[in-house]
Amino acid sequence: MVVVMEPGSGDSQIARVVEKLKTYGMDADISRGEERTIIGIIGDEREVDFDSIASLPGVERAMPVLKPYKYVSRHVHPEDKVIDVEGVRIGEGLVFMAGPCSVEDEQTTLRIAEEVKQAGARIFRGGAYKPRTSPWSFQGLREKGLEILSKVKRQTGLAIVTEVIDSEHIDLVGQHTDIFQVGMRNMRNYALLSRLGGASKPVLLKRGDSSKLEEWLAAADYIVRNGNENVILCERGIRTFEDYTRNTLDLNAVVGAKIESFLPIIVDPSHGTGRKDLVLAMSKAAIAAGADGLLLEVHVRPETAWSDGKQSITPDVLREIIRSCKQIRDLE
Amino acid sequence: MVVVMEPGSGDSQIARVVEKLKTYGMDADISRGEERTIIGIIGDEREVDFDSIASLPGVERAMPVLKPYKYVSRHVHPEDKVIDVEGVRIGEGLVFMAGPCSVEDEQTTLRIAEEVKQAGARIFRGGAYKPRTSPWSFQGLREKGLEILSKVKRQTGLAIVTEVIDSEHIDLVGQHTDIFQVGMRNMRNYALLSRLGGASKPVLLKRGDSSKLEEWLAAADYIVRNGNENVILCERGIRTFEDYTRNTLDLNAVVGAKIESFLPIIVDPSHGTGRKDLVLAMSKAAIAAGADGLLLEVHVRPETAWSDGKQSITPDVLREIIRSCKQIRDLE
Amino acid sequence: MVVVMEPGSGDSQIARVVEKLKTYGMDADISRGEERTIIGIIGDEREVDFDSIASLPGVERAMPVLKPYKYVSRHVHPEDKVIDVEGVRIGEGLVFMAGPCSVEDEQTTLRIAEEVKQAGARIFRGGAYKPRTSPWSFQGLREKGLEILSKVKRQTGLAIVTEVIDSEHIDLVGQHTDIFQVGMRNMRNYALLSRLGGASKPVLLKRGDSSKLEEWLAAADYIVRNGNENVILCERGIRTFEDYTRNTLDLNAVVGAKIESFLPIIVDPSHGTGRKDLVLAMSKAAIAAGADGLLLEVHVRPETAWSDGKQSITPDVLREIIRSCKQIRDLE
Amino acid sequence: MVVVMEPGSGDSQIARVVEKLKTYGMDADISRGEERTIIGIIGDEREVDFDSIASLPGVERAMPVLKPYKYVSRHVHPEDKVIDVEGVRIGEGLVFMAGPCSVEDEQTTLRIAEEVKQAGARIFRGGAYKPRTSPWSFQGLREKGLEILSKVKRQTGLAIVTEVIDSEHIDLVGQHTDIFQVGMRNMRNYALLSRLGGASKPVLLKRGDSSKLEEWLAAADYIVRNGNENVILCERGIRTFEDYTRNTLDLNAVVGAKIESFLPIIVDPSHGTGRKDLVLAMSKAAIAAGADGLLLEVHVRPETAWSDGKQSITPDVLREIIRSCKQIRDLE
Repeated sequence: MVVVMEPGSGDSQIARVVEKLKTYGMDADISRGEERTIIGIIGDEREVDFDSIASLPGVERAMPVLKPYKYVSRHVHPEDKVIDVEGVRIGEGLVFMAGPCSVEDEQTTLRIAEEVKQAGARIFRGGAYKPRTSPWSFQGLREKGLEILSKVKRQTGLAIVTEVIDSEHIDLVGQHTDIFQVGMRNMRNYALLSRLGGASKPVLLKRGDSSKLEEWLAAADYIVRNGNENVILCERGIRTFEDYTRNTLDLNAVVGAKIESFLPIIVDPSHGTGRKDLVLAMSKAAIAAGADGLLLEVHVRPETAWSDGKQSITPDVLREIIRSCKQIRDLE
Repeated sequence: MVVVMEPGSGDSQIARVVEKLKTYGMDADISRGEERTIIGIIGDEREVDFDSIASLPGVERAMPVLKPYKYVSRHVHPEDKVIDVEGVRIGEGLVFMAGPCSVEDEQTTLRIAEEVKQAGARIFRGGAYKPRTSPWSFQGLREKGLEILSKVKRQTGLAIVTEVIDSEHIDLVGQHTDIFQVGMRNMRNYALLSRLGGASKPVLLKRGDSSKLEEWLAAADYIVRNGNENVILCERGIRTFEDYTRNTLDLNAVVGAKIESFLPIIVDPSHGTGRKDLVLAMSKAAIAAGADGLLLEVHVRPETAWSDGKQSITPDVLREIIRSCKQIRDLE
Repeated sequence: MVVVMEPGSGDSQIARVVEKLKTYGMDADISRGEERTIIGIIGDEREVDFDSIASLPGVERAMPVLKPYKYVSRHVHPEDKVIDVEGVRIGEGLVFMAGPCSVEDEQTTLRIAEEVKQAGARIFRGGAYKPRTSPWSFQGLREKGLEILSKVKRQTGLAIVTEVIDSEHIDLVGQHTDIFQVGMRNMRNYALLSRLGGASKPVLLKRGDSSKLEEWLAAADYIVRNGNENVILCERGIRTFEDYTRNTLDLNAVVGAKIESFLPIIVDPSHGTGRKDLVLAMSKAAIAAGADGLLLEVHVRPETAWSDGKQSITPDVLREIIRSCKQIRDLE
Repeated sequence: MVVVMEPGSGDSQIARVVEKLKTYGMDADISRGEERTIIGIIGDEREVDFDSIASLPGVERAMPVLKPYKYVSRHVHPEDKVIDVEGVRIGEGLVFMAGPCSVEDEQTTLRIAEEVKQAGARIFRGGAYKPRTSPWSFQGLREKGLEILSKVKRQTGLAIVTEVIDSEHIDLVGQHTDIFQVGMRNMRNYALLSRLGGASKPVLLKRGDSSKLEEWLAAADYIVRNGNENVILCERGIRTFEDYTRNTLDLNAVVGAKIESFLPIIVDPSHGTGRKDLVLAMSKAAIAAGADGLLLEVHVRPETAWSDGKQSITPDVLREIIRSCKQIRDLE
């Protein structure tokens, strides 16, 4: 932390900052400028309560120097993490997760699963629990949806990723899924994240739509710190003023996550753009930016999808995406 | 819903939209313009899956006309709702909720409670469970904090509001609080909201920092629809590009909430601005805009607060705020 | 400026930063922490090219400590500035500027002017040059509009504020206006601002819809630095994700501007909200927050206004606003 | 336009809307739903004043159906536009524009030009006029910078792109540049855009940092409508809450611009990210998304650059970018 004192702050105010830092077991280094005095902290600032310093008399600003996360930092763990999910190695080569937004009736769901498998996807996605803005919208098939997912796995051999929306569903969902998905609305549900730190299966952590990169990585730290190192990041767009797209898919964060963290990262261009006519181009862009894979909404008949049909692509487009993305990845 | 067809869309595409609407039990009214054809829906669009229409061939856009909420709408319930909390009538006159960000040691917490009571607050706030961006920050005293809150109530007679961060804590927190607070990070934790719909105590619902007014009201609808009509809205700032303030306190939403909904609304200028030097002025502005009260961070020695000291005011400032706000409210 | 070195940066990298600072005539103060070394700058950092330091090898971050403006800072000039416009003293008491969005035909414009004068406004607003998002929208009456404004002044005695959109119109507009308005789209048109620094009439500087407070004050610094001290700030809303309102009127910035600068500040709730049903409440809130006045769109028949009718109020509402705002201002 | 009436609006209110539409020469088509009545407009809504309808009594919303631009729409002109600049065909194959942020001393500038030419760039960029947030920052070499640019062209044969910041500089800048650059701060300076509609050289139009795709295309329409069809779009990042990057480079808008318009589009990852460690990856992503080229800040010694050194890459990295981008483009 760097503490910037106000112009005209006096020695007693500086002394008070130093004394406060000492209560945290930190040392201070004082640098007097012509207009301002600056105090640097010697020690691990993560143990200091930032605000308790910022509110001391005479303090203009206290600026963090360290990041709010630690375990997921590439400084700590320079090599890329590879996560094995039923033989699919995420973080090594490209992985494609595909399926409908919501789990639908058994027959349609199985048909989509067969199609995405043939197109080259290795992991099947589908929501049994759907968090929806309006309580008046379809909320998912719930337990029945989970059972259909298990059937998909038995019949196709595809691994499963599905969302868990509450701590109390972790056990149940864990019986049917290979990867727990945490949706963007729950990225800051730290009670849920901490509980998933105790789970034995990997977690796919979507970025919150108003979360900075460092906040997203700090959310991942909640899971890792509680014991589960298998976290897959998923960029899915942030909220901005632009309304041409449903969200603003932020590929800068993909590159940034690769720099700052060792975790694998995949991209969801379906939610990220909300428009099927943008999915192919943004998929290629995501892989060119360095993503380890994609999470895609695919439906055999998008116009009849139970939710998010506007952003679902067909299995043929999925095939084209996988082909193009592999070509880009194979360039040396 | 209004469905706008693409230029050049044909009769068969229009017929397909109409047919799809009929599967939802809706009727359609077709309006042919020179460049485009527009289809209006006759019936309650909330039962229609929006995306399943938007993704039909030939459809350019499908625009909602109804709101994503229903029960909390002023159309449904024109008179203001008044919520009684231990004799404090929220939504009638002004209510002031004050206290530290986090519950601290018993002695300090009790001292703050006595001071805010003398200054004129009727409800005591303090977090026992603190959702924090970094797992490395202080997370609250938890159960011990709840017991201190109960002691505050016994000794001062102040009613209590404190945050609940997970479904499984509802029973425990409910034994110690008079109002359940849902923090901005959990505004879209629909599992939690639905459970609070079954609780017997009021819920103070903070606005998510990336939530539109209509999404916030839809979140309130989750609670009301599940049986709990006692929801207090709380504006606490949204995330924008501006970094002078910690958040951008949005008083427009206060006025908007009063127009669109019958629920009482209070304002949290402490988190909304993150700067104690802005709290007095923004408190007055909030009341002038029509808010029913304030939620304020107050500490006897802000510079020693365990969290958020930068935004905490002293009891003297609280006294000044209450005096000024009452004057504004009393103007005819 | 505070320069934070990367972990593991060496002495030679630190020496290079110090050397670079010396080329700007600055001194450095080095503070070595356990994880990082921090370099403080001794001297006026505004003369240093920030990026040339930030890009040196081994530098993790360079953080500004000083603000990007100087002349408009309250540190420099602690007393409030009062600007006299035809006898109206802006920054002392409350000032109300009112009129139609666009100057309309002479008869309508004069009628509106008479009405706003009777309601208590002292300055007449109206656009002769209208910057519009689409080239297909009405662009203003231009020269003809300016002549109508001069006629308004002659007949009513109201002072005039109108927008100037290009350097080459400054002379012409200056013959008809008492205050030059710079619209939000031109807040960063530094060529225009610099030219207005040479003008002899005050400038009303609207905040850009994506501008931080400090950027807005730096824009004002362009005008003052070039010789014109008479700048009136005008908050008119920023662009956020919220679409209930046309913009998000940011009263926090009003309070912040009063703290950071000595310039008078007024608020435009008409553009700031874009909804006439929010104008009265937000006007009161603005004055409660400390604004020196309001800029309001008023029309005798809002539903026939040539532009922005959705946000125009009637003279009766203006009267009510002036009455309420004066009451709030008069509270001690 | 689609006009949605409030619930309970009466026949006389509907009649008034229809009558108002007739004054614009439009026809109306009325669709009565169970809860609301909707009025569709028959005719070209761009000639109707949107707000004058939206403010009529009984109107809840008036929603545009047509876009705010016309000439730059792909509907009007389905084939991609190719713009010839000194033999470089922009919109056909890939184009690389590279150089320093600011024009520097002649020797350094020429050396950079030689290097970027050898690396494969065909167009030289460099600012002679620099719009800067703070009046205390370096503002560019101005006329002297323009002369250096002319010398670069004579010595290297590279075409030139440089920024024009005011209408009155158009003639002067036009003597030294091959492409007029309009910076993001001036994207809404419609006086400047309209003047450039009369210029005989192409215009590179950067997107405003708070501008939606449709507003950017409407800004391009200002230029085309006034006679200059040679507009090159340039995405350079938008302002969001994320501060890891200087801006949020929005590749979704690149794909969107290609769908909605026939104009060529290039991407500026240097300003778009503000971090040289992100430039290579985001360059590849931009080309994978479909961009026609890149605008890059390159310096022979970034750490000594006069401005924006933090985001400048070296000629070696430029060479790598060009090689990688061509590989991606060449994939079938």
